[in-house]
Amino acid sequence: MIKVGIVGGTGYTGVELLRLLSQHPDVEVDAITSRSEAGLAVDELYPNLRGHFPGLAFSEPDPERLGDCDAVFFATPHGVAHAMAGELIGRGARVIDLSADFRLADADEWAHWYGQSHGAPDLLEDAVYGLPEVNRDAICQARLIAVPGCYPTAVQLAALPLLERALIDTDHVIADCKSGVTGAGRGAKIGSLLAEASESMKAYGASGHRHLPEIRQGLTRAAGKSVGLTFVPHLTPMIRGIHATLYGRLTHEPGDLQALFEQRFKDEPAVDVMPPGSHPETRSVKGTDMCRIAVHRPGGGDTVVVLAVIDNLVKGASGQAIQNLNLMFGFDEMEGLYAPALMP
Amino acid sequence: MIKVGIVGGTGYTGVELLRLLSQHPDVEVDAITSRSEAGLAVDELYPNLRGHFPGLAFSEPDPERLGDCDAVFFATPHGVAHAMAGELIGRGARVIDLSADFRLADADEWAHWYGQSHGAPDLLEDAVYGLPEVNRDAICQARLIAVPGCYPTAVQLAALPLLERALIDTDHVIADCKSGVTGAGRGAKIGSLLAEASESMKAYGASGHRHLPEIRQGLTRAAGKSVGLTFVPHLTPMIRGIHATLYGRLTHEPGDLQALFEQRFKDEPAVDVMPPGSHPETRSVKGTDMCRIAVHRPGGGDTVVVLAVIDNLVKGASGQAIQNLNLMFGFDEMEGLYAPALMP
Amino acid sequence: MIKVGIVGGTGYTGVELLRLLSQHPDVEVDAITSRSEAGLAVDELYPNLRGHFPGLAFSEPDPERLGDCDAVFFATPHGVAHAMAGELIGRGARVIDLSADFRLADADEWAHWYGQSHGAPDLLEDAVYGLPEVNRDAICQARLIAVPGCYPTAVQLAALPLLERALIDTDHVIADCKSGVTGAGRGAKIGSLLAEASESMKAYGASGHRHLPEIRQGLTRAAGKSVGLTFVPHLTPMIRGIHATLYGRLTHEPGDLQALFEQRFKDEPAVDVMPPGSHPETRSVKGTDMCRIAVHRPGGGDTVVVLAVIDNLVKGASGQAIQNLNLMFGFDEMEGLYAPALMP
Amino acid sequence: MIKVGIVGGTGYTGVELLRLLSQHPDVEVDAITSRSEAGLAVDELYPNLRGHFPGLAFSEPDPERLGDCDAVFFATPHGVAHAMAGELIGRGARVIDLSADFRLADADEWAHWYGQSHGAPDLLEDAVYGLPEVNRDAICQARLIAVPGCYPTAVQLAALPLLERALIDTDHVIADCKSGVTGAGRGAKIGSLLAEASESMKAYGASGHRHLPEIRQGLTRAAGKSVGLTFVPHLTPMIRGIHATLYGRLTHEPGDLQALFEQRFKDEPAVDVMPPGSHPETRSVKGTDMCRIAVHRPGGGDTVVVLAVIDNLVKGASGQAIQNLNLMFGFDEMEGLYAPALMP
Repeated sequence: MIKVGIVGGTGYTGVELLRLLSQHPDVEVDAITSRSEAGLAVDELYPNLRGHFPGLAFSEPDPERLGDCDAVFFATPHGVAHAMAGELIGRGARVIDLSADFRLADADEWAHWYGQSHGAPDLLEDAVYGLPEVNRDAICQARLIAVPGCYPTAVQLAALPLLERALIDTDHVIADCKSGVTGAGRGAKIGSLLAEASESMKAYGASGHRHLPEIRQGLTRAAGKSVGLTFVPHLTPMIRGIHATLYGRLTHEPGDLQALFEQRFKDEPAVDVMPPGSHPETRSVKGTDMCRIAVHRPGGGDTVVVLAVIDNLVKGASGQAIQNLNLMFGFDEMEGLYAPALMP
Repeated sequence: MIKVGIVGGTGYTGVELLRLLSQHPDVEVDAITSRSEAGLAVDELYPNLRGHFPGLAFSEPDPERLGDCDAVFFATPHGVAHAMAGELIGRGARVIDLSADFRLADADEWAHWYGQSHGAPDLLEDAVYGLPEVNRDAICQARLIAVPGCYPTAVQLAALPLLERALIDTDHVIADCKSGVTGAGRGAKIGSLLAEASESMKAYGASGHRHLPEIRQGLTRAAGKSVGLTFVPHLTPMIRGIHATLYGRLTHEPGDLQALFEQRFKDEPAVDVMPPGSHPETRSVKGTDMCRIAVHRPGGGDTVVVLAVIDNLVKGASGQAIQNLNLMFGFDEMEGLYAPALMP
Repeated sequence: MIKVGIVGGTGYTGVELLRLLSQHPDVEVDAITSRSEAGLAVDELYPNLRGHFPGLAFSEPDPERLGDCDAVFFATPHGVAHAMAGELIGRGARVIDLSADFRLADADEWAHWYGQSHGAPDLLEDAVYGLPEVNRDAICQARLIAVPGCYPTAVQLAALPLLERALIDTDHVIADCKSGVTGAGRGAKIGSLLAEASESMKAYGASGHRHLPEIRQGLTRAAGKSVGLTFVPHLTPMIRGIHATLYGRLTHEPGDLQALFEQRFKDEPAVDVMPPGSHPETRSVKGTDMCRIAVHRPGGGDTVVVLAVIDNLVKGASGQAIQNLNLMFGFDEMEGLYAPALMP
Repeated sequence: MIKVGIVGGTGYTGVELLRLLSQHPDVEVDAITSRSEAGLAVDELYPNLRGHFPGLAFSEPDPERLGDCDAVFFATPHGVAHAMAGELIGRGARVIDLSADFRLADADEWAHWYGQSHGAPDLLEDAVYGLPEVNRDAICQARLIAVPGCYPTAVQLAALPLLERALIDTDHVIADCKSGVTGAGRGAKIGSLLAEASESMKAYGASGHRHLPEIRQGLTRAAGKSVGLTFVPHLTPMIRGIHATLYGRLTHEPGDLQALFEQRFKDEPAVDVMPPGSHPETRSVKGTDMCRIAVHRPGGGDTVVVLAVIDNLVKGASGQAIQNLNLMFGFDEMEGLYAPALMP
């Protein structure tokens, strides 16, 4: 049994950590912090947790208490982990950051996209990008994990087999992504109201979204050279789920694409390559840490289409964070993450 | 480890049994039947189950194989359990029927509401109405369980404390209920299309719904006298969930209603009485076997309002069926049913 | 052609006034005010209006300009019309207030429910409650209209025929109401987020909602004596629509209820009594000024159930405001309000 | 005043024709046919139309009566217009076909995609593809109109300015489209149930959809040479709306793309080019015949992204059909189509 802390527990990724950890036999939540809700029992804010964490209340962040934990999750806006991670690591805790603070290897690029200087550049070389399908060994040893963003998780998993084998034109990769509204967090924004976001579809950030450099960095690593990516996210009228539709131009005859994908992910517990001809639905992964993928080659032409679905709050955030935790502490990689999706 | 069979597994209560049983450590699904889909792997129909039941496929119903199971669930339209339950019980299986076949104690009333004669009146005296909050001891011994309907579960739990203490006028009990569309099953009906049922609200069956006699029977048992019930169900644009709003007229000063409800359900693992002033949300029980209840007395007047929420597919069907199974086989009553609701 | 002004035009009732007035041949919108958005073109905030009001932008409220209008709508939070209505009336404009400021005849009761003293008690005797089905003649002559609230419109129309004929027990009237989320306005509240309000159902204000005294006042007028009302509103996962389910106990044999309702509303252009056995859907009135009603007497017993649906933003707010305007200025009562509902 | 008939009026495009025509001052609906619902009043099936078409009921299709109409709409599955259009034209009616029967100029290609031989190849040379933004003059003179499909309308309008100016690589055009569920029609299919299609997103037909050849034909006409198109439609959890996201690779410096689009559509009453940086929402055109478009060039690179939204039942079907009717009979092109979208 290990002890964990959660910094910034009132948002959607925070409560999702609690929901998932309630089913984890080897983890005890010792502290969950929130400056705004300090003192409030967690199940007053989230009645679905009634009975699951008796006595657990939000508290002011206390570095000493958090530092005593075996691991600390940051479910915070960007900038917070910058300020606290170093001290907690110094006290012996391992840090799993769900925010964007350590996702980009280049502090200047981070500063460019986030509009402020990087707060902990010295930690960057210790930070491991927490995509198990790419970095499993490094994750096991890491003291600081940057959990990938939701779009980056889906797009990278869709693209990796093609880029690693150099099958597609790296100058023109297109990722058309559709996300449920929880991707925008729990902030009270007019655009996220049911009355505004329901019964409608729209793109956003078509000219540049903060996940673009993260995805580009991951694809570039996979390809071994710079990747030109067009990434357009769309707001979809549903609570959870990301559907990534990836378009690549084949540069030569690729062989059996289905076999390629199956082979690439055959030992991956959180990736499911669907049968040929499939169209994965986001609901088939709702609440789970699974990514389901299908690969198509319409008309046998030179465009390959990859469809990948995840739950943005699970494989795209809190579930993947726990998958990292499991690897770091030697638990079964999917411990606490076994339950199938709610469907319908 | 016990072996169970599921008859009629393609509908929503069938797949929900599978989803929940996948998390049950002591149950193995030996057979799942469907005449229309025989031969199809269950995870082809329900991709959320990929990896959870390797090799399990729908099969033609085979009384011999089902009779060898320790327990058989019926997740079928009415009439099917009538035809098969007797034989399976004779072969030693215990039967847990999620359909309406054995819910009404009076075969003539059943025939009246279901438009056909009762197919197994001789089994009625063995049938136990599977509401653990009322019949726990009988359930433990039962060979044949009639799992309560979804509306009846919510309304009875809301009304029991008031009726058992004879606090309200039994001639005029009103149950205004709101249900998600899965209550109508997986049949391809125009009225259940997203394009028809979304962004709208309507009552149905205002002049008489098949759950009316079942609820009335339960309330009458609790009150010890005939109860005059007005029950109006409403179709709500959501997938899962029932919200029952119960109105009763207090016949005398009732004392502390909050304490009454808390006391009535204090040992019930599947009922949660919320703090005073609460308004339970259906999403707080989504995917779970929990019923959350709040009691109000507006303006301190003589009308009591009880709000009760359940997931119609879980506490209103498959979860309650497993709660019965657990009692029948001596497992922890909530085994397999511990996970908190998905929220948001 | 008359000139109108709209005070507080950025909210949902404001934009709905614009949408409807764009189809009104005899009305020109001269000014629309908003302190927070002054200077912004209306179609930048509401792109559905692109091309319909060229040049119209939000402006600071200017009593002189507004006072020059033939009519001024207030689509504001409570308290604003209190402060401005008197002056505008003095300048010759007729005022149609969509807020709650003049709905309650008793200034003390208003102060009790709204937590502040009434700002214009001297205007109360001039204020006409703008429910055409009750006050048509007075509306035609009025200088100041209090447009009824959304719940009060639906509940009163459902109850009037029964109360006017003294058919039901006035001590125990129950109105169980279900509303879409636009009833909560365009404010950025967490509870109104798609991620929070979608896929869920809950009651709110069960112990007392601000519409309670307004409904009670209307029912009491109709009954000619005090009415004991229990009113429980529910938040429903849809954008628009109110479904009111009214329960009354018949005190004596009522005769033909269907005929009673048809007779009561036969000359009402905004009320549609559906055929016997109907269950009106909120979507059948979406975007329209219509109220559809059905009356049921389950099992021929002594409880009457009335189902009434409106669009909360139209018959429950902006459409009814225009219906009042039409009456005040001698236009066809439904001018600008003829279009059928969008369905599906 | 002209007289029109509607063949196959029970589906969504049929009722949408009625909804829109109820606001058209110069059109009278003389007959609406349905074999399955003959005898039923239209407002029994569609209560939103109560009061709008008194006396209008579905009837068996009668070529004589339909032939007497000035125009006949076909709102039917494919194959029906093949069988009837010739006779009606012979009787003097002009035919506006909302089905796919006359959309493809090549009868063999039609046969390939629709799995049956073309039923009226001799009429093909008279058929005019009813996209006013391309074929306005021909439409005015036409006796037979093939109303474009929903996806084809959105994709063509998005792509035309680029292809007509030869700005993009015609070998690799990508159209990633998202549609509400009414695109699948009113058929009772399990996949269209609220319980199945809500709270989820999925692609379908990724390897080939019937709208592909129609779009390709239109793009090829615009480009003056064969266009290689990848078209992936996605089922989106909403009732109405299509969002087309078009990706093209610029083959040379294109100049001011915003100006190009504004210029191309400046006289088009049904196309609205949004300001630079816009992201059109499908709800901004709900219920209207408008297409809103925005053009982006992310990072100033060589990929152009065009976002186009329509209501699939209006500009994508019934509204565009009426736009054609207006042109054919010399009415204002947007007569009956002026109302702004319902928003929220």
